[in-house]
Amino acid sequence: MTGSHQTVAVSLGDRSYEIHVGNGLLRQIGSQLAAIDDISRVIVITDSHVGALYAETVQASLRTAELPFDLLTVKAGEKSKRVETADSLWQQVLSVGADRQAVVVALGGGVVGDLAGFVAATFGRGVRFVQLPTSLLAQVDSSVGGKVGINLADAKNIVGCFWQPVHVSIDLEVLHTLPDNEFAAGMAEVIKYGVIHDAAFFAQLENDIEQIEQRDSATLATIVARCCQIKAEVVAADEREETGVRAILNYGHTFGHALESLTGYSTYLHGEAVAIGMTCAAKLAVKLGMIEPSILDRQTTLLEKANLPTRMPTQDLDDFLTAMGRDKKTVNQQIRLVLPDRLGHVVLRDDVAQSDIRSAIQATFE
Amino acid sequence: MTGSHQTVAVSLGDRSYEIHVGNGLLRQIGSQLAAIDDISRVIVITDSHVGALYAETVQASLRTAELPFDLLTVKAGEKSKRVETADSLWQQVLSVGADRQAVVVALGGGVVGDLAGFVAATFGRGVRFVQLPTSLLAQVDSSVGGKVGINLADAKNIVGCFWQPVHVSIDLEVLHTLPDNEFAAGMAEVIKYGVIHDAAFFAQLENDIEQIEQRDSATLATIVARCCQIKAEVVAADEREETGVRAILNYGHTFGHALESLTGYSTYLHGEAVAIGMTCAAKLAVKLGMIEPSILDRQTTLLEKANLPTRMPTQDLDDFLTAMGRDKKTVNQQIRLVLPDRLGHVVLRDDVAQSDIRSAIQATFE
Repeated sequence: MTGSHQTVAVSLGDRSYEIHVGNGLLRQIGSQLAAIDDISRVIVITDSHVGALYAETVQASLRTAELPFDLLTVKAGEKSKRVETADSLWQQVLSVGADRQAVVVALGGGVVGDLAGFVAATFGRGVRFVQLPTSLLAQVDSSVGGKVGINLADAKNIVGCFWQPVHVSIDLEVLHTLPDNEFAAGMAEVIKYGVIHDAAFFAQLENDIEQIEQRDSATLATIVARCCQIKAEVVAADEREETGVRAILNYGHTFGHALESLTGYSTYLHGEAVAIGMTCAAKLAVKLGMIEPSILDRQTTLLEKANLPTRMPTQDLDDFLTAMGRDKKTVNQQIRLVLPDRLGHVVLRDDVAQSDIRSAIQATFE
Repeated sequence: MTGSHQTVAVSLGDRSYEIHVGNGLLRQIGSQLAAIDDISRVIVITDSHVGALYAETVQASLRTAELPFDLLTVKAGEKSKRVETADSLWQQVLSVGADRQAVVVALGGGVVGDLAGFVAATFGRGVRFVQLPTSLLAQVDSSVGGKVGINLADAKNIVGCFWQPVHVSIDLEVLHTLPDNEFAAGMAEVIKYGVIHDAAFFAQLENDIEQIEQRDSATLATIVARCCQIKAEVVAADEREETGVRAILNYGHTFGHALESLTGYSTYLHGEAVAIGMTCAAKLAVKLGMIEPSILDRQTTLLEKANLPTRMPTQDLDDFLTAMGRDKKTVNQQIRLVLPDRLGHVVLRDDVAQSDIRSAIQATFE
């Protein structure tokens, strides 16, 4: 499948767009953007790591397409996803003379996509936005669906918007330079899609895990495109997370966010915390009699084959529960959990006893 | 008409809402909000001036309705409409335990409405928002239509969103405590609606100007409701300012914004600068043969009867043109002007010679 080029449609009325998945797409971004109407300027936002690897490829393509552009670089890392960086970017976007016909392009992983997307959503009350996700996590998750935003000191992603891109290009070649731990972190979200929505896809992952770990292009193309399709379907059904449909994507996340928060966002990559959170959730589902233990076992085995953690050091349970309650997906202060009731299907539960939640967390300690 | 209560519908599909206009509505806000589903908390954002006058009325009404609430107060004045204040409000909204079912209520003039609206649009990727506008300008203009945002040092309103309120209550009683210069500033926008959209309304204003200046309740009720109706119609036709329809509301504003910018936002109230800008625009329209001089004269007379300035001190013309070009309504760097072609109707023009623009500005110098 190398050299081919797949598209996934995201159907959101007048906010619909296409996700392109293929090899070498960064080299073609100029011609892709040239097909978009009335672009006055292209503002490429990247970070210091990704920029060093790929900014020149993107700039060369924009030059060839004769699109005027500026490159704005933030420091790599989650710490850039904050108010001060957004403020600095707003001022830079203003000072390069961007108007409402400007297009903001996010070249990077989830941090750059969320930050640049928030700047695009709010500069001039919203300019068009393009995602060029360069991490597996961003390719299968954060670049799809329009969630953009920044962190406050006490809460991740608490300030933001729903702002859909007009175009997403996923270049699979960039995965070859991705560090192993970041590739693994992306795999947590890949495996999540199987558990929450598609048992056949889960079985395919079990079958293909060795080729995936070798980063085989053809295998990755199929898998990344399928993840985008699933996410696009879910987002199309509940764009603004209002009906509960979109909430299924948070499987493992309420536990994971709490662990990230308690460890100061410095111990675990997001995907690693999600893998542990998925384990907590599946253990809780077993305890509640919702799934057979064999499903938990298959999930644990697959996560471990993807080099992901499924246990965590002992945490204070009161602190853990408090952190779970602070998660912004809480409704009227009640912790709402996403739990599997069979492989490939999850339900929302806000009636689980605290004692059961506690014992599922405890059962995941090392 | 005192004691009665009018409603104006704003038709925006699933973002539709009603504007209520009447006397004593602040005292009824608790029961109005109690009719909105699933409110977890009410976060009232006000400023030091308006809060001293009206926060207790609003709080008493919320207490009677048994709605849990918090009151957050910012310093009065345009300087609060900036990133640092938004950041502080985000943190306070988080720390009082707001979740996605919280409702942000803006109690104040345009600054509070724009700032609180931006916080509502971005906290938790958007929570519901209610406007209680307490200045004439906010009642007839900024509280209607969903434009929210903050300033950067070099540009007003450059960071923001379109975020519609779920409810607007306009209490006309608050106009009795409004300082004369702020009442006059609001009248600039009132007169603007006549010029751009409704010649009969303009004639009514000419006829009723004495009762208006005496702040007669019945007259103000009719006038405020009509302004909201006109703005609601325009906004419904072009919510996100994409087709040019909504741009007609910017009559006088491109000139006015430039004057505000050149005078450091400290000499003129926004409405005063708009009155001078409307005079520039009408003079330009006369010069271009688009309207008879008598229409300019009627506009000037009405603005002056409303105690508004129609001339400005001499400005550097190059600086003035540069400032006009920085206005975020520019399209591909071309200055786009809203000019009348008859009383009650305006057109968009982006083909006006700079020399003509210059002489219209010059003709407005004292």
